[in-house]
Amino acid sequence: MSAKHLNGIGASPGLAIGKAVHWRKEQPQTEIYTVEDTDQEISRLETVIRSAKEQIAHLREVTKERMGDKEAAIFDAHLSFLEDPAYIDEMKNRIRDQKKNAEAICREVTDEMSNMLASLPDEYMKARADDIRDVGHRIHLLLAGIAPFDPSLLSPGSIVVAEELTPSDTAQFPPGIAAMVTARGSKTAHAAIMARTLGIPAVLGLGEELDKIQDNDILIVNGDEEYIIVNPDPDTEQKAQGEMERQRELQEAALKKADTDAVTSDGKRIQVFANIGRPADVDSALQNGAEGVGLFRTEFLYLENSQWPTEEEQYESYRTVLEAFGDRPVVIRTLDIGGDKNLPYAKLPEEENPFLGHRAIRFCLANPEIFKTQLRALLRAGVHGNLWIMFPMVETVSEIRQAKNLLKEARKELEDEGTQTAENIKVGIMVEVPAAAIIADLLAKEVDFMSIGTNDLTQYTLAADRGNELVAPLYDAIHPAVLRLVRQTCEAAHQEGIIAGMCGELAGDPKMTEVLVGLGLDELSMSAGTIPNVKENIRLIETDKAKRLSDQALTRNSSEEIRSLVEKNR
Amino acid sequence: MSAKHLNGIGASPGLAIGKAVHWRKEQPQTEIYTVEDTDQEISRLETVIRSAKEQIAHLREVTKERMGDKEAAIFDAHLSFLEDPAYIDEMKNRIRDQKKNAEAICREVTDEMSNMLASLPDEYMKARADDIRDVGHRIHLLLAGIAPFDPSLLSPGSIVVAEELTPSDTAQFPPGIAAMVTARGSKTAHAAIMARTLGIPAVLGLGEELDKIQDNDILIVNGDEEYIIVNPDPDTEQKAQGEMERQRELQEAALKKADTDAVTSDGKRIQVFANIGRPADVDSALQNGAEGVGLFRTEFLYLENSQWPTEEEQYESYRTVLEAFGDRPVVIRTLDIGGDKNLPYAKLPEEENPFLGHRAIRFCLANPEIFKTQLRALLRAGVHGNLWIMFPMVETVSEIRQAKNLLKEARKELEDEGTQTAENIKVGIMVEVPAAAIIADLLAKEVDFMSIGTNDLTQYTLAADRGNELVAPLYDAIHPAVLRLVRQTCEAAHQEGIIAGMCGELAGDPKMTEVLVGLGLDELSMSAGTIPNVKENIRLIETDKAKRLSDQALTRNSSEEIRSLVEKNR
Repeated sequence: MSAKHLNGIGASPGLAIGKAVHWRKEQPQTEIYTVEDTDQEISRLETVIRSAKEQIAHLREVTKERMGDKEAAIFDAHLSFLEDPAYIDEMKNRIRDQKKNAEAICREVTDEMSNMLASLPDEYMKARADDIRDVGHRIHLLLAGIAPFDPSLLSPGSIVVAEELTPSDTAQFPPGIAAMVTARGSKTAHAAIMARTLGIPAVLGLGEELDKIQDNDILIVNGDEEYIIVNPDPDTEQKAQGEMERQRELQEAALKKADTDAVTSDGKRIQVFANIGRPADVDSALQNGAEGVGLFRTEFLYLENSQWPTEEEQYESYRTVLEAFGDRPVVIRTLDIGGDKNLPYAKLPEEENPFLGHRAIRFCLANPEIFKTQLRALLRAGVHGNLWIMFPMVETVSEIRQAKNLLKEARKELEDEGTQTAENIKVGIMVEVPAAAIIADLLAKEVDFMSIGTNDLTQYTLAADRGNELVAPLYDAIHPAVLRLVRQTCEAAHQEGIIAGMCGELAGDPKMTEVLVGLGLDELSMSAGTIPNVKENIRLIETDKAKRLSDQALTRNSSEEIRSLVEKNR
Repeated sequence: MSAKHLNGIGASPGLAIGKAVHWRKEQPQTEIYTVEDTDQEISRLETVIRSAKEQIAHLREVTKERMGDKEAAIFDAHLSFLEDPAYIDEMKNRIRDQKKNAEAICREVTDEMSNMLASLPDEYMKARADDIRDVGHRIHLLLAGIAPFDPSLLSPGSIVVAEELTPSDTAQFPPGIAAMVTARGSKTAHAAIMARTLGIPAVLGLGEELDKIQDNDILIVNGDEEYIIVNPDPDTEQKAQGEMERQRELQEAALKKADTDAVTSDGKRIQVFANIGRPADVDSALQNGAEGVGLFRTEFLYLENSQWPTEEEQYESYRTVLEAFGDRPVVIRTLDIGGDKNLPYAKLPEEENPFLGHRAIRFCLANPEIFKTQLRALLRAGVHGNLWIMFPMVETVSEIRQAKNLLKEARKELEDEGTQTAENIKVGIMVEVPAAAIIADLLAKEVDFMSIGTNDLTQYTLAADRGNELVAPLYDAIHPAVLRLVRQTCEAAHQEGIIAGMCGELAGDPKMTEVLVGLGLDELSMSAGTIPNVKENIRLIETDKAKRLSDQALTRNSSEEIRSLVEKNR
């Protein structure tokens, strides 16, 4: 392909140059033929299943080491299918009954099972449909003697080119992948989330032009400006190299100053916190200069268990994080299940619109015993650090009062048992339902802090499911309505003399730091890797100018107009 | 039961006194025994199926006559099961194979099919699970020789008492039922909606106490104050009779003045319009004094067809309504599918959260040919009346501009074809996504009117699915956040010199008329039956006082506090 500029969707920011490698998924043809010796055919299948198990177990280990338990868990699902009689014995029986070859039977049984799973209402089961297709594909390749694509062979600096990428694909990424580009997908696709987690640039939705890219073509991937260049001319390549060098230097400079407070040029300190998902994230947060934790999601404790986690299990996790941060604040969000997060053992009823359903604080207030176990664990752990408790999805004064009453009850119980509880904790809410922002003045009177969760606030304010690709173009936190709610929340908080923070994805968008400071936020919480950059941005801000910029943004007609205003201002 | 006061959920307003009649669903025991002569058993089943068909066909006719095609359609579904070989032949085959009696087999096959249907992701199929249970129950009763409960025997003035009521139950209500009370259910339950349609008081969720009520016990049902009294003392009964008489007189007085404009005591005219769902609703709207149509939902054209309705079909419907209303405004809302309204032939993809998905204007802008057919029909029909076109689910300036461009294209096409188009139409939007209310100032510059759809606005602002019973207590349009958005929208509209109306259910709540006028609404649109009352309420309002009342409401902490403020003010 000669030099070519392609526009796509910038799903993960950053700039990269590297050699293209297609992520190949061989689709072997399925011949169907009659076998006489069915015992031999069955034993051929058994051999292949053993190999498949070995491959998957290996992938599981590698993934666990490099990316963690959660990412590796997908291969447990794969392994479990290889041990499921409904799958394996069914294939064997059919070979015996129908006297057909293993490839044909594998295709047939895999298709049937995956279609059946895909038709079920449960999201978990639907995801299993993809898993069994993956497994069937692996068996098929092994039967056909085709070596599966081995991603571990990708050399560092490669840029992955694919039609689209599944969770099990990205889990196999070796370290050092420079960027990823896909023909399909959106900002909310799995691949987009994974790219942001890995911190590599990604441009998705590039369309069919991508097929024309050859392996080893040179690619420039610009995730910020949402384009790629295939086989750039030497001049363009050199400029991009220079820009990458400059960004690297800035990044290094920012990292050196990561531990210094972020203070605007006119002296206003903005606290920069980290969002974390589990105790293991603490190190990276501290290394990147987090001045606290702005959002500790406690769901991992519930999602990784097969039953409600005990008070003791919770206490240990919370304590670990609180101790690591010493006197710096750790905002722990109470259980936020429902919506897109289901717990099999919670036996949540199926809902037509789970995001508009029985989730988070609604679930907790309806299940006070489960909630109180968490509150007890929090009160005990709070002794070991600076605990701020945050309730999610609040939208009425009464919810806050009910939650605080349960907290009081939990404290009373512990005191009666002679157990030490944290004295000086703060209690706050996550502002993520539009109503909460709109009546922030009323809610602020009831709490010690408020933190805006822009992911949910955006999806509700714009009535656009953040996981639905059909409405992905509408889902945009930079909509003037969302920014107005942010301003309104900050003003209400300050009126009551409390802190207004933000812990949604918008908080970590370095292009928006000035607008956010201008809207009045006192604290920004984000994934650890972004902290040094955002801190550095804050140091360049003058609050009056930022205020004027954000005033202008609120009068703009659209996200695009706000982005171009911000761009012009740089 | 001696005199007893029970509190429940007021699901439909009004006051009634009458005799209790339990809505009985006999649950025959299923004996299982072996039959020798399976041919005879099959012929017994066939006889019963014929009777079941006759019963259902009769119910279908009666329901159609009294309530219309839509309500009668449920019995078509029942009939279709009785003609479905997957159901009927399966029962016959199993009698032959298993040599079991028809009752046992009917129970077995019905349970299997209904469980299978209930497990499917499609809402339509889930509803069919209830239908087949209904049909199986009918066959079972006939086999057992038990006469099914015959609702047509209920004498006028009866009050229906039930555990809960299904769509096929309420479809069988004879005329003159005075009220309904149930043990389970919520404001959003099917029975609640049906009670409001029938205009009879309903108190739901009364719990197990209801079992103690005997047939012919006297009940007072107060839907406004959300209680019932069982066997009241003579004094209480007399007071209730007096109150009913007073309400009837007020209602009659209001109806007499229905055709007079609604003008506040200090001279501000509020336009009172009707919401209609199809051309047949025009007569009732006019009789009740509708000064226009504030919401003509066009979905019936799409939902009742098996393919996209033609321009001609649409033109005829729109013209009928426009002509009937002469120079009075008719606000026609463009297609609002998606969410809870699916069209099989539209092949909408399945969505995790359909209410936050690809619906209404989003669908129309993505399918311009389907949209333009409707716009052409509207422009042609507009020649025959006073047409206002309203776009639903708008939340950005760009959506309005795109829709208006398509309207311009449609007009150009018609003009090029030499077809006459309406000159003086108004173009507006429905304000139902929180973002639209929040940036109403920006949107108001682009349109001729705005109408607030409180049903959707409430569910998004509060992140509470209006169809989900689990969050029904949260779903409440009288939340201060919703009312603040109403105020904000009115102010933005007036700033641009355009009309702000309301067409959600809140508009027809007579208790809230004063607050709504105080918030600044110029037009209220509601179901026809409520119009005379609301008009009469408006005549008693003084706008300054209403403004002060609504100012106070906006500072209240909760729906309950606002309701009690309004109550105290009466």
